[in-house]
Amino acid sequence: MVVNVAIVGVGLVGSEFIRQVLTTNSQKIAVVAVANSRHMLTSATPLTASWKDDLNSGSSTKPFSLDAFTASLAASKAAHPTVVLDCTSNEAVAEYYPTWLAAGFHIVTPNKKAFSGDLALYRKIKELTSQPGSPLIYHESTVGAGLPVINALNDLVNTGDKIVKIEGIFSGTLSYIFNNFSTLETSAKPVKFSEVVSVAKELGYTEPDPRDDLNGMDVARKVIILGRIAGLDSTQETVKVENIVPELLRNASPQDFMSKLPEFDAHFEELNKEAVRSGQVLRYVGLVDPVNGKSSVTLARYPASHPFASLKGSDNIIAFTTERFPSPLIIQGSGAGAAVTAFGIYSDILKIVERTQQ
Amino acid sequence: MVVNVAIVGVGLVGSEFIRQVLTTNSQKIAVVAVANSRHMLTSATPLTASWKDDLNSGSSTKPFSLDAFTASLAASKAAHPTVVLDCTSNEAVAEYYPTWLAAGFHIVTPNKKAFSGDLALYRKIKELTSQPGSPLIYHESTVGAGLPVINALNDLVNTGDKIVKIEGIFSGTLSYIFNNFSTLETSAKPVKFSEVVSVAKELGYTEPDPRDDLNGMDVARKVIILGRIAGLDSTQETVKVENIVPELLRNASPQDFMSKLPEFDAHFEELNKEAVRSGQVLRYVGLVDPVNGKSSVTLARYPASHPFASLKGSDNIIAFTTERFPSPLIIQGSGAGAAVTAFGIYSDILKIVERTQQ
Repeated sequence: MVVNVAIVGVGLVGSEFIRQVLTTNSQKIAVVAVANSRHMLTSATPLTASWKDDLNSGSSTKPFSLDAFTASLAASKAAHPTVVLDCTSNEAVAEYYPTWLAAGFHIVTPNKKAFSGDLALYRKIKELTSQPGSPLIYHESTVGAGLPVINALNDLVNTGDKIVKIEGIFSGTLSYIFNNFSTLETSAKPVKFSEVVSVAKELGYTEPDPRDDLNGMDVARKVIILGRIAGLDSTQETVKVENIVPELLRNASPQDFMSKLPEFDAHFEELNKEAVRSGQVLRYVGLVDPVNGKSSVTLARYPASHPFASLKGSDNIIAFTTERFPSPLIIQGSGAGAAVTAFGIYSDILKIVERTQQ
Repeated sequence: MVVNVAIVGVGLVGSEFIRQVLTTNSQKIAVVAVANSRHMLTSATPLTASWKDDLNSGSSTKPFSLDAFTASLAASKAAHPTVVLDCTSNEAVAEYYPTWLAAGFHIVTPNKKAFSGDLALYRKIKELTSQPGSPLIYHESTVGAGLPVINALNDLVNTGDKIVKIEGIFSGTLSYIFNNFSTLETSAKPVKFSEVVSVAKELGYTEPDPRDDLNGMDVARKVIILGRIAGLDSTQETVKVENIVPELLRNASPQDFMSKLPEFDAHFEELNKEAVRSGQVLRYVGLVDPVNGKSSVTLARYPASHPFASLKGSDNIIAFTTERFPSPLIIQGSGAGAAVTAFGIYSDILKIVERTQQ
């Protein structure tokens, strides 16, 4: 029994997923197609470790389009359950999901767009996957990478638990920045906010322009995804986002942003000192409050004894407070990077293997 | 589409599961049989909220035996996928699993016996559930109650991650005792070990005889369950258990144990002081070390910054360190009690619904 997988987007995450499948010698998954924005390669037999060369310069490579890619999978779909794995962060690919689902393809993806964008698209996808026998869609890696966050929330919701609050540090970048900038460890040397951002950028933890992290939009997308699972009709418009990029730097060039950020160090230092004076630390958190129908992304304070205060490195942490879990169910760990994102994808695909082989 | 559920053991957990299913108005699950050690009640239609009266004194109640219970489910199994839910902690019931599986029943259970006892029984169960189309068995609630611990470990193992270490506080009772006894919070009033045990007993957190918690055997069972999933042939004999019941009190009467425990307060106080002097706290932890093929249950020390040190109440916490998660994947929260145990069972049964309806 085999599930075939056709991958759109073979950057770091897509390549790592193929590596994991090939090296764990899974007899359950065959990668039968790969595509980047220019080329595509489909095969009647499982792709091998040479797939990258074959895609870029092999004799079987063809120009890519979503329609041509989909048409090329007809034979695969006739023979085996076939999963389209979207490893892009592309909106046009997300808009293609209803076409794939209507044609009977399953979907797995770390792409947040379909679950945090247009509500009409989201509802269409839910509708196409809601019946027994419908195609399946899994997107564990859209929040916290491979951490089993969406799985846990779905289990809580599907068994009728009442979600009281979902609170979390959903960005590895902002986790790293505030874990290092705001600490109660007296041995820690005080650092300037701009320095921490600069180091995070050098380490490759931030987007090329760190404002794309600091503006909170990526965290907001994750808050929207979880909020919708918890029953809210969240959109970019309904989530209140605290953009911590200083207003004067929002329209600056990327170079000017980095060079002028030190002028705002005193502002962040003051916020941090206020927190530390009351035994607290600063953390950039997303919050879903289904009881009051609200969601937000804010720079908040937590006391030393709170699990968010002792977070390390660039870890994510998510706490679900529910009727059955008044002491919250907490999941934490590495929430970014190709290895753990590919793990989340791989787990999702194994669920499709299980659900289609019975 | 419906999955039928037949329940053996309707104490706190079994009753709570039925309550959750009835109040969430699940259209997917029908409870069609219930049994305690004396009586059983089977029905062609889903049981209702009056099931308890019907079982104990209704006209359809019959004497219970495992064979008679199984025979009575023939009609259910012919019509729908049928799950036997074992809510006992009974070994004889666990030994019956191969019979149920061979007959095509699925199994869900919080009963640890089949997964932590005789290896031959465990292997027989694995063999009977290993093929596509085999009956399914889920036991999330055997470790950490409803916390998605076994799910997470299975995902890691099934996707070929390398498990480096599994470390956790697996007992709500021992979590409560050491969270209160050993703390670095300077505002906390020092308490005697015997007092904490006594309060835990009064609160109903311990077994009737607290030595059944303090001897580590319950934690050892959970360590065995996780160890086997991680690939070890763990048994009661291979797990090194630190029994923290003072040797002189191991054969005392339950009353003598409680009355004489204060004589050993100085011993525990010394251990705690040693830890606190080096900025650490005491925690009673289970450890699986698949790399070296070892497992243990010990009273260990953790620094203030470690997530185990800031644990609260009677929460469980489990950390998986793997090749992909060098910064461990951590799951924590309430790991005991009927509501969360029933939640774990309910989630397991919904997985069977999903896997049998495609």
